[in-house]
Amino acid sequence: MPQAPHVLISEVGPRDGLQSVKATMPTADKLRWIDALYAAGVREIEVASFVPARLLPQMADAAEVVRHAVTLPGLTVMALVPNRKGAQAALEAGAHKLTMPVSASAAHSLANVRKTREEMVEEVRAISDLRRDIAPHVKLEAGISTAFGCTLQGLVPEDEVIWLAAQCVEAGADESGLSDTVGYANPAQVRRLFKRLRAELGDKAGAAHMHNTRGLGLANCLAAYEEGVRTFDASLGGLGGCPYAPGASGNVVTEDLVFMFEASGIATGIDLQRLMEARAPLVAGLPGEPVYGMTHEAGLPKGFVQGGSHV
Amino acid sequence: MPQAPHVLISEVGPRDGLQSVKATMPTADKLRWIDALYAAGVREIEVASFVPARLLPQMADAAEVVRHAVTLPGLTVMALVPNRKGAQAALEAGAHKLTMPVSASAAHSLANVRKTREEMVEEVRAISDLRRDIAPHVKLEAGISTAFGCTLQGLVPEDEVIWLAAQCVEAGADESGLSDTVGYANPAQVRRLFKRLRAELGDKAGAAHMHNTRGLGLANCLAAYEEGVRTFDASLGGLGGCPYAPGASGNVVTEDLVFMFEASGIATGIDLQRLMEARAPLVAGLPGEPVYGMTHEAGLPKGFVQGGSHV
Repeated sequence: MPQAPHVLISEVGPRDGLQSVKATMPTADKLRWIDALYAAGVREIEVASFVPARLLPQMADAAEVVRHAVTLPGLTVMALVPNRKGAQAALEAGAHKLTMPVSASAAHSLANVRKTREEMVEEVRAISDLRRDIAPHVKLEAGISTAFGCTLQGLVPEDEVIWLAAQCVEAGADESGLSDTVGYANPAQVRRLFKRLRAELGDKAGAAHMHNTRGLGLANCLAAYEEGVRTFDASLGGLGGCPYAPGASGNVVTEDLVFMFEASGIATGIDLQRLMEARAPLVAGLPGEPVYGMTHEAGLPKGFVQGGSHV
Repeated sequence: MPQAPHVLISEVGPRDGLQSVKATMPTADKLRWIDALYAAGVREIEVASFVPARLLPQMADAAEVVRHAVTLPGLTVMALVPNRKGAQAALEAGAHKLTMPVSASAAHSLANVRKTREEMVEEVRAISDLRRDIAPHVKLEAGISTAFGCTLQGLVPEDEVIWLAAQCVEAGADESGLSDTVGYANPAQVRRLFKRLRAELGDKAGAAHMHNTRGLGLANCLAAYEEGVRTFDASLGGLGGCPYAPGASGNVVTEDLVFMFEASGIATGIDLQRLMEARAPLVAGLPGEPVYGMTHEAGLPKGFVQGGSHV
């Protein structure tokens, strides 16, 4: 009997990954990739970003991708929305869940979106009100970016991270998660911040979005798991920046993360073999683009059986 | 005031790393590399393997390397010895600590050294008796290899791992550590096995020797740390097998491991900047040989200060 999943792996490759590469994946390949992820058992996918096509031509087909993804039963279809206008478009396309990035670094917020953090909280409120009016079943997540440090200002005070996460929930977000946007996090810090987040927000404490820029991605996911986090963002094939190169965005590799959990006896609901097969449409749709993943390179251990029976 | 180190990083590159590459590093470069590691604060180095030079020409200068390393005050100079003959040579050269690999996998032991595990325990006893006779201050460690699984037999029963570790201590080893020789370990298993090892052996439970073959190296070190392990093997620049390629030995990268601990506020006694500078003699001595390390590639976080003051 398959176990009920104990953790939720939220695949962000079709949004975070594709957004970070220069090439544009043809829509048909995106749909095949999403289908393959779904076939492997992935049940939450961030499929697109609703930003102006002139800024991100890779996301010009966002509405079409969402309209396809919502036909897959049981899949939670997420879309990134930077503002109210993007949220309107995502809701019209039928997304189940919106995620809005809000930077905990005052310097990063101003540099990146030319808004203060307080102004971003008001944007969260506007989006929350909008979805309440036109699609009240749709969930809204605030993703607190640079929560573990920032390349512009360095340290981001933990009090400010927790304050901002709480402000976003107060403004109407269903949950606030924490993102290690630049790969500065360490396991002790991850434990402290998620412990505080859960103390502050209870079950409105959201996902861990960890990067592997300095090799600590899986260790940080493990630390977050031990503090009770049960949703983890990851990118198939580490798409969206070589995790082993300078300046890389370095999302945690989905295959390695699923291997860590499944080998540890923590069910993900994802079939590792089929997950690795989902690399084929990704590679086909982005010829020449490097993909990563050490579990894929090394192969599964001899005698490995998913679901903890090996261990 | 510098903190007293809270964990001991045992650098294995000059033995494990060099043993795994085809090229032979000139002796002068080995000594410069060891000096640079020492200058960075590394206080335990596995400097050589005492095996026949016809089998491993990279180690033909083992005695000379040991004789140099023991001149560095406060450095524990380790040598790998596969048998009594190697132990004799290592003791004569002046090594402070011997490490003897003993495979927990019955199949691997027979295939690798054509001895049963029981015969290897008797070899440990012979080496222990020898050092008691000629150099009683020298420490002896048994490194239980394939402790987390084996490419030949797959699963290695945990009872057998703990039994073998205890047998080695009974035969005279001062400590038994556990090695994930083929990169099969997961954090849950690491916790279980080190918990049992410490319950069985107390302070004779030894080091964690983790590989990064499937990307879980640092997560496994974190799990071991949380079970009380305080000595960790690692290889500068990940020397001795690309951690991102098939068939790699994939030692944990020293720089990334030190970054994880130092960022978490756990003192290693090692200066990260100087540790990264110790890559220069390694690269100079092995032209063309790839080295790895994500912290080195990405650089240290902005505002990062060692010793936990950043976090």
